Amino acid sequence: MSSEFQQRAAELIDAGHLLYARGMVPATSGNFSARLPDNTLAITVSGRHKGRLDDGDIMLADAAGHSLDGNRPSAETLLHVQIYTRFPDARCILHPHSVNATLLSLLADGDVELRDYELLKAFPGIDTHECRITVPVFANDQDISRLATVVETRMANTEEVFHGYLIRGHGFYTWGNSVEDALRHAEALEFLFDCELRRKGVSPK
Amino acid sequence: MSSEFQQRAAELIDAGHLLYARGMVPATSGNFSARLPDNTLAITVSGRHKGRLDDGDIMLADAAGHSLDGNRPSAETLLHVQIYTRFPDARCILHPHSVNATLLSLLADGDVELRDYELLKAFPGIDTHECRITVPVFANDQDISRLATVVETRMANTEEVFHGYLIRGHGFYTWGNSVEDALRHAEALEFLFDCELRRKGVSPK
Amino acid sequence: MSSEFQQRAAELIDAGHLLYARGMVPATSGNFSARLPDNTLAITVSGRHKGRLDDGDIMLADAAGHSLDGNRPSAETLLHVQIYTRFPDARCILHPHSVNATLLSLLADGDVELRDYELLKAFPGIDTHECRITVPVFANDQDISRLATVVETRMANTEEVFHGYLIRGHGFYTWGNSVEDALRHAEALEFLFDCELRRKGVSPK
Amino acid sequence: MSSEFQQRAAELIDAGHLLYARGMVPATSGNFSARLPDNTLAITVSGRHKGRLDDGDIMLADAAGHSLDGNRPSAETLLHVQIYTRFPDARCILHPHSVNATLLSLLADGDVELRDYELLKAFPGIDTHECRITVPVFANDQDISRLATVVETRMANTEEVFHGYLIRGHGFYTWGNSVEDALRHAEALEFLFDCELRRKGVSPK
Repeated sequence: MSSEFQQRAAELIDAGHLLYARGMVPATSGNFSARLPDNTLAITVSGRHKGRLDDGDIMLADAAGHSLDGNRPSAETLLHVQIYTRFPDARCILHPHSVNATLLSLLADGDVELRDYELLKAFPGIDTHECRITVPVFANDQDISRLATVVETRMANTEEVFHGYLIRGHGFYTWGNSVEDALRHAEALEFLFDCELRRKGVSPK
Repeated sequence: MSSEFQQRAAELIDAGHLLYARGMVPATSGNFSARLPDNTLAITVSGRHKGRLDDGDIMLADAAGHSLDGNRPSAETLLHVQIYTRFPDARCILHPHSVNATLLSLLADGDVELRDYELLKAFPGIDTHECRITVPVFANDQDISRLATVVETRMANTEEVFHGYLIRGHGFYTWGNSVEDALRHAEALEFLFDCELRRKGVSPK
Repeated sequence: MSSEFQQRAAELIDAGHLLYARGMVPATSGNFSARLPDNTLAITVSGRHKGRLDDGDIMLADAAGHSLDGNRPSAETLLHVQIYTRFPDARCILHPHSVNATLLSLLADGDVELRDYELLKAFPGIDTHECRITVPVFANDQDISRLATVVETRMANTEEVFHGYLIRGHGFYTWGNSVEDALRHAEALEFLFDCELRRKGVSPK
Repeated sequence: MSSEFQQRAAELIDAGHLLYARGMVPATSGNFSARLPDNTLAITVSGRHKGRLDDGDIMLADAAGHSLDGNRPSAETLLHVQIYTRFPDARCILHPHSVNATLLSLLADGDVELRDYELLKAFPGIDTHECRITVPVFANDQDISRLATVVETRMANTEEVFHGYLIRGHGFYTWGNSVEDALRHAEALEFLFDCELRRKGVSPK
C-alpha cells in the first residue's frame, strides 16, 4: 500500500474511534472513505465495527467503488462514489449513524433547515450566522444504486450548496477536503441536529 | 482453566468495561456469560461490578448453571441456561441494565416493536430496514426458575425470531454466536430503545 | 499518616475521578469521607475539585469533624458526622451533586419514593423489586449544624431505613460499609433519579 | 516564549481537552485566553480544534489583541480584551459552545436568571444559595467590535456583578482569576444551564 493510503487509513481509524466515543457509530453502523491523489478510495470494509477499526478494516477500491484488493467494501460505496463525482475537491466522506440524526430524519417534515446558529460557520464559504442551510432528507432504500441516483438528481437540480444529507432512519453523510474537514462537518451537524431535535421536542408518534 | 475459558473471560471483561462506560451496567447490575465448546459456561460471579471486572470475577459453571469452581454464579443463571438451550448456536449472552431499557420496559404497553430502522440490519438474517422485530417485555420476577419458564413458553409458541427481550424495570437480555456478535446486538438494542423512548416522549406517569 | 488513612484516601480519590467522569461532581461541588477504625475521618479538604483530587486533598479530622492536621474540612462536615453517629456500621459517605439529583429535588413534592425497580436490590437488606424506598428531600440550609439536626430528627423518628437523602437544589448524600458500597449506592441512586425524572417529564416551571 | 506563557498555554490546552470531552467545544468552536503578568495574552489561534490543541495552537497577542507572533488570533479577540479591561483581576477567559448554552440562549426571553442553586457558590463572593445571578443574553453579531461595545455598555451601566454571559445561538463567555477558576465557572454555568433548560422543558418553536 502507498504511504498516502496508509496516512488516510490511519486518519479514518482515528475518526472511527472518535465518532464511536460520541455514540455516533453504534454496532457496525456507519462507513468512511478518503480519496487518494490517483482517485482510488481508501474505504471501510463492509460490516466492521467503526469504534474498533484497525489497519485490516480499511481497503482499497477504484474510483467506481470496485474492490482492488479482494475485500468487500461497504454496501453503501456507491453513495461515496456519487459524492466524489459531484464534488471534485472532496477528499473524505463520513457517514455517522447517531440517535440524533436518526430521530431528526424520522420526525422532519421534508428537509431540515438550519439557520441563525454561529456553528454554521463550520462549513466552507459561510462567514455569518445570518444564513440558512438545507440538509435534504432522503427516503431509505436498500437499492443503493437507486438511492445514489436520487441523491445525484437532487444535487444536480439546485443552486443550493449542500454540506451533508440525512437518510430516513439511517444517519447522515457529510464530506470535506480532508479527513479533518469532514470530521469538523460531522461534529457540527451532530451538534445542530441535537439542537434542532430538542427545540422541536419529541412528542408521541 | 482452559485457554478457551481464558479467552472468553477476557472478552467478557472487555465487554463489561465497554458497557459500563456507556452507562449500561450501573452499580452491580447486569451479568454476562459465554458458552465453551464443551458446553460449560464462563459466567460472571454474583454481585460483582461489571465496570471493574477482572479475572476473579468470571467463573465456570456446567450447562445447567451449577458452579464447577465453588464460586456463586449470577442469581439469573437460569435465564442464561434457557437461552443456550433454545438457541444451539448462541455462544454469548449479555444482560445490560440501562436507563433506556428500564424506562422503555416500564412505559411500553405490551411488547416493543421496532420497525423501519436501518440499524435492524445489525441482527442476523435481516437485510432491510423494511421489517419489524418484536422485543418481548416480561414481568419481573425474583423466582428466576419461574421467569425462565415464562420466557421459554413464549419462545416455544411462536414462529417469530427474537434477538433480545426486556424484563420490566430490569434491563434486557440479548445473545449472539460470539461475544462480538452479542455486543453488536446489545449496542443496536440500546440505540433502538433510546430512539423509541424519545419518539414516545416521556410524560407524567 | 496511617496506612489505613492512605488506603481510604486512595479509594476516595478514585471515587472522585469516577463520579466526575459521570458528571456527578461539577466545579468544586460534592464531598467525600471514610471513617477509619479509630473513628477519625479521612475527608475531602474544603473547596477542592473532586475530579482532580490527589493526596493533598484528603485530610484527617476527628469523630466530631474537627481538623487534626491544620487543613479545613468540607463546610458540610457535620452532615458526615450525623450519618456516622446514626449508622455505626457506615464507613464511607459520598455526596455527589448531579443534574438529575438537583432537578429531582427541585421538582419533587415532598419525598421521593422509588418502587418496583430491580436496581433497588443494590441497597442492603433488599432482595426484591417488590418494595419501596423513601429518599427524603430536605430544604437547603447554609447553617449546616441546623441542617444536620433536621436530618437527625427525621431519621430518629421513623422505622424506615434510609439509604440516602436529597437536599433541595444541592445534590444527595449516600453511605455504605466501605467506599465500594457507598459508590454502588451512589450509582444506583443516580440511575434511579434519572429514571424518576424522565418518567415525570420536566415541564414548565 | 516566557515560561509564564508556556505554563498558561499548557493549562489552556488541558482546558480544551477537558471541555471537548464534555461536548462543550464541538468542531472548531470556542476560544480561550490567559493574561500574563506583562498584560500580553496567550490566546487560541483562529480556527483550531479545541479538543486537539497543542503548543502551536496558542499564540501571543498584546493587550489590545494584536498578534505579536504572526499568528492570527481568534476572530473574537476583542471580546476577550473587553473583559480583561473591565475586570482587572481576570487572568483567564473561556468561551465554550455547548448545546445547552446554545439552546438556552435561543429559548430565553431576555436574560437568564439563576437562583436557589447550591452551585451558585462556585462563583466568587457568593456564600449562599439564597441569591440570584443574572446571565445577560446578547444578540449575536459578526461585527465583534460592535458586540464588544454592547457588552461593555451593559456592564458599565449596572451595579450587578456578572460571572458570564450568553450570545444568542453562540455559546457563552466566562472568566476567572486563573485558568482553574475560569474552568470552575464554566463547569458551574454549564451545569446550571442544563438544569434551567430541563426545568423549562423544550417545546415546539
